[in-house]
Amino acid sequence: MKNKISRAVVKRLPKYHECLTILNEKGVDRTSSAELGELLGATASQVRQDFNNFGGFGQQGYGYNVKSLLSEVEKILGLEREYKTIILGCGNVGTALSKFPVFKQYGYKVVGIFDNDKNKIGRDVDGVFVKDIKELESFLKATKIDIVYLTTPKDVAQELCDIIVKGGVKSIWNFSQTKLDVPENVHVESVHLIEELFRLSYYLKGAEY
Amino acid sequence: MKNKISRAVVKRLPKYHECLTILNEKGVDRTSSAELGELLGATASQVRQDFNNFGGFGQQGYGYNVKSLLSEVEKILGLEREYKTIILGCGNVGTALSKFPVFKQYGYKVVGIFDNDKNKIGRDVDGVFVKDIKELESFLKATKIDIVYLTTPKDVAQELCDIIVKGGVKSIWNFSQTKLDVPENVHVESVHLIEELFRLSYYLKGAEY
Repeated sequence: MKNKISRAVVKRLPKYHECLTILNEKGVDRTSSAELGELLGATASQVRQDFNNFGGFGQQGYGYNVKSLLSEVEKILGLEREYKTIILGCGNVGTALSKFPVFKQYGYKVVGIFDNDKNKIGRDVDGVFVKDIKELESFLKATKIDIVYLTTPKDVAQELCDIIVKGGVKSIWNFSQTKLDVPENVHVESVHLIEELFRLSYYLKGAEY
Repeated sequence: MKNKISRAVVKRLPKYHECLTILNEKGVDRTSSAELGELLGATASQVRQDFNNFGGFGQQGYGYNVKSLLSEVEKILGLEREYKTIILGCGNVGTALSKFPVFKQYGYKVVGIFDNDKNKIGRDVDGVFVKDIKELESFLKATKIDIVYLTTPKDVAQELCDIIVKGGVKSIWNFSQTKLDVPENVHVESVHLIEELFRLSYYLKGAEY
């Protein structure tokens, strides 16, 4: 029977991945719900419940084999395949993203970068030539794109988002510092840089009123 | 009487700031708890409660004056003053950050950039010369720094964090993709880029098991 995994569990999955990667790099063979819980700031029972959502991978009295649990978590996260991705906006964020080492490590392949700036169009960014944003719609018709990294200014973000969604993209990483309206079957992760920065100054004052 | 503001309220403060900025830019004079709630995805009563934490700024039958509420929120967030900040790590993220327009707009002044790469030390990044990371400790003794943007690889992040904390810094924006151990009086906001990226591929598979 299929069941929907809660957002809280999904939020922890990449954290499990990180802990297991570290344990694996350290040469640790075996771990337990208690140890993973401690690394994540969760209880052992929470860890067991989390993995039970996916069938459970531990054995009573043994715990978990680090390598095989890591491999299961990678399968759950979808890290075993390659993704075709494009970057919209070739500014500071877009350029920094094009060099994000994690992309190469885990098969998030950047196959296109788009901008509306004539001085940027045609430029070679890490082996990918910057295309005119006007070509986005026809590009999406010709090439199935898995993930779009949206790094444009916020005033054009929604308009581009609509083109992306119409072009069949189901996953958007939103760096545009604005909320995007998307249909239910499209997933957006937003990087709220300004909000984080403002919280830093808030807490600097002391959190008392 | 002083009371501690909950993290949930603090999380919403920058969102209020964004909504009020947009209303203000549109020339709207007056708003209500209901309208703000709708923009934020909260109830009117939640909005009233949030502002009551800071003394409440509305008037029954009138609502809120957009300009003065925006100015109150800016005061609460500490946006009326200037902050001295430094960037650790002059890679893609550090360089992109140095050009972050919000820094100039709201007075987050970058007064130093540090790296350990001899090819980068001495380079001019937006008018700030890259310093040797070895000088960090003495720099912090001479200059009171409010916020540090930590963009180094994760294997040196904790070591640098300890130097920063010892140097009296109370606010860290952590881009190093690792968890930092800090004393209770130091606030860390972490940008979990890898976690967000992995969630994007997770949701691509369909969130059903």
